[in-house]
Amino acid sequence: MSFLITILGSGAAIPLLSRYPTAQLVQVHNTMILLDCGEGTQMQLRKYVSKSLRIGHIFISHLHGDHFYGLIGLVNTFHLLGRQKELHIYGIPALKQILDLQLEHSWTTLAYPLIFHQINPDVPEIIMEDKHITVSTIPLNHRIPTCGFLVREKNPRRKIRKDFLEKVKVPHSEFERLRDGDSFVDAYGQEFPNNEITEDPRPAKSYAYCTDTAFHEAMIPQIRGCDLLYHETTFAQDKREDARAKFHSTAVEAATIASLAKVKKLMIGHYSARYQEVDVLLKEAMAIFPETIAAEDGKVVEL
Amino acid sequence: MSFLITILGSGAAIPLLSRYPTAQLVQVHNTMILLDCGEGTQMQLRKYVSKSLRIGHIFISHLHGDHFYGLIGLVNTFHLLGRQKELHIYGIPALKQILDLQLEHSWTTLAYPLIFHQINPDVPEIIMEDKHITVSTIPLNHRIPTCGFLVREKNPRRKIRKDFLEKVKVPHSEFERLRDGDSFVDAYGQEFPNNEITEDPRPAKSYAYCTDTAFHEAMIPQIRGCDLLYHETTFAQDKREDARAKFHSTAVEAATIASLAKVKKLMIGHYSARYQEVDVLLKEAMAIFPETIAAEDGKVVEL
Repeated sequence: MSFLITILGSGAAIPLLSRYPTAQLVQVHNTMILLDCGEGTQMQLRKYVSKSLRIGHIFISHLHGDHFYGLIGLVNTFHLLGRQKELHIYGIPALKQILDLQLEHSWTTLAYPLIFHQINPDVPEIIMEDKHITVSTIPLNHRIPTCGFLVREKNPRRKIRKDFLEKVKVPHSEFERLRDGDSFVDAYGQEFPNNEITEDPRPAKSYAYCTDTAFHEAMIPQIRGCDLLYHETTFAQDKREDARAKFHSTAVEAATIASLAKVKKLMIGHYSARYQEVDVLLKEAMAIFPETIAAEDGKVVEL
Repeated sequence: MSFLITILGSGAAIPLLSRYPTAQLVQVHNTMILLDCGEGTQMQLRKYVSKSLRIGHIFISHLHGDHFYGLIGLVNTFHLLGRQKELHIYGIPALKQILDLQLEHSWTTLAYPLIFHQINPDVPEIIMEDKHITVSTIPLNHRIPTCGFLVREKNPRRKIRKDFLEKVKVPHSEFERLRDGDSFVDAYGQEFPNNEITEDPRPAKSYAYCTDTAFHEAMIPQIRGCDLLYHETTFAQDKREDARAKFHSTAVEAATIASLAKVKKLMIGHYSARYQEVDVLLKEAMAIFPETIAAEDGKVVEL
């Protein structure tokens, strides 16, 4: 039962060598998704992630280049690597135009099905659902249409009690059914109701990914109480006018949102290239919301 | 008097961490141009080159992604860095469409003039000329319309004779005129004809950049005798059928072209990701054309 986030890029619009543009890999059980795909994401995947061909879904928050210029390269590399499995991409319709135009002029017909899902970044809604997770849009307030994404683990399953397994011989093949809530009938016909042989599942975990955005309280109802909030922190507080003008947030603003939304933990990132070190941003955020960590390229966070 | 080539990416379609997709910086005196611009070129420039804002012209050989996916990111970063100087981009018309569509949907109006020059890759012609160089297209034979580029130093200037400078006092401000061929008149009115006080200039240097292409003898008249030929070497000879099918070249084919064209030196590159080491390619090329070197990311070659 794992919920892992790998930071592939923690930088903002101008990349540094130590800080590529935005992309994050989220793995929940065996579901692998990508949140944004800035230039160089395929190199970062090569550096930090094995089996990235397993990525099934890519979500693009908005059409500023530092969030999607790496998408066409990744789509193309998957093709060259012989991918056959469907790839689902979620974004505003213009993203599809941009991909199609580039594929057309390279005379490329992808070897795998690329399924494009048109999203409306202004409306909070579930846009993807599989066995393990749901992904919803979180409308944000940026200069161009932008949304964050809420990744929510689905139905953590019941846990079979150890004392029951010690007492009664249960074939391995039955485990899945029991975790799903079924009763067990042993070889002698005796029935064990599920609530006697399993424990309640732990609460579902959730990850809110909110970048790029100005200070935007409207997101709070959607992200309330989530296990981890990634909130962009492009500037320190002394640059709050820059943040406002560019529809970005300061560390203080990110921490204020985290605090108001009572999230369990905050991760800051999307740092302006002006900050070679991000201590100042982390310190400002922690003064308001102590449970704050700083994203950096290659960092893996487990929920 | 310098003619420098910096390899920013020596890889082919699938990038490796040690081998980014194709891009090369060529500096002749203070003219800086970029040949191709694969994904991550702006990171490679940050790594290997100072003052990359001085790049004035970018030439795109063809619309396979490993030769231009980094262009929009670089264009955008120049904008964010406050560039004001014109940027000239050379490519087929579809390249402009691709750039425009992406700028449009990020609501970006560039802070500097981007001047697009439409090229016809099927016709060898001079497409750029400034004080120091000319750049011509070299039609190649690839799966989609593709051309190489011939960068030729223009008018190396005459050299003022040392013995003359020792004998006659010449103000520094006069040097440029003399190198351009003017006579000198000293303070007493005595005239020194230019051919007595300067030496003939050395021959102009030239660099032929030919990627991607199948074995293509038609390029030979254009590249004949050049100081350095960069010729793609995607495969070793045992993969010559793959090379043929994909309109790429083997090391033997690259060396054969170099030999037939009597170039002074050959540089191989654009290696398939299957070759972790390129010794086999270098060896195969050197067996036919000993004056061969192997491109690698970060390598600087001076003509």
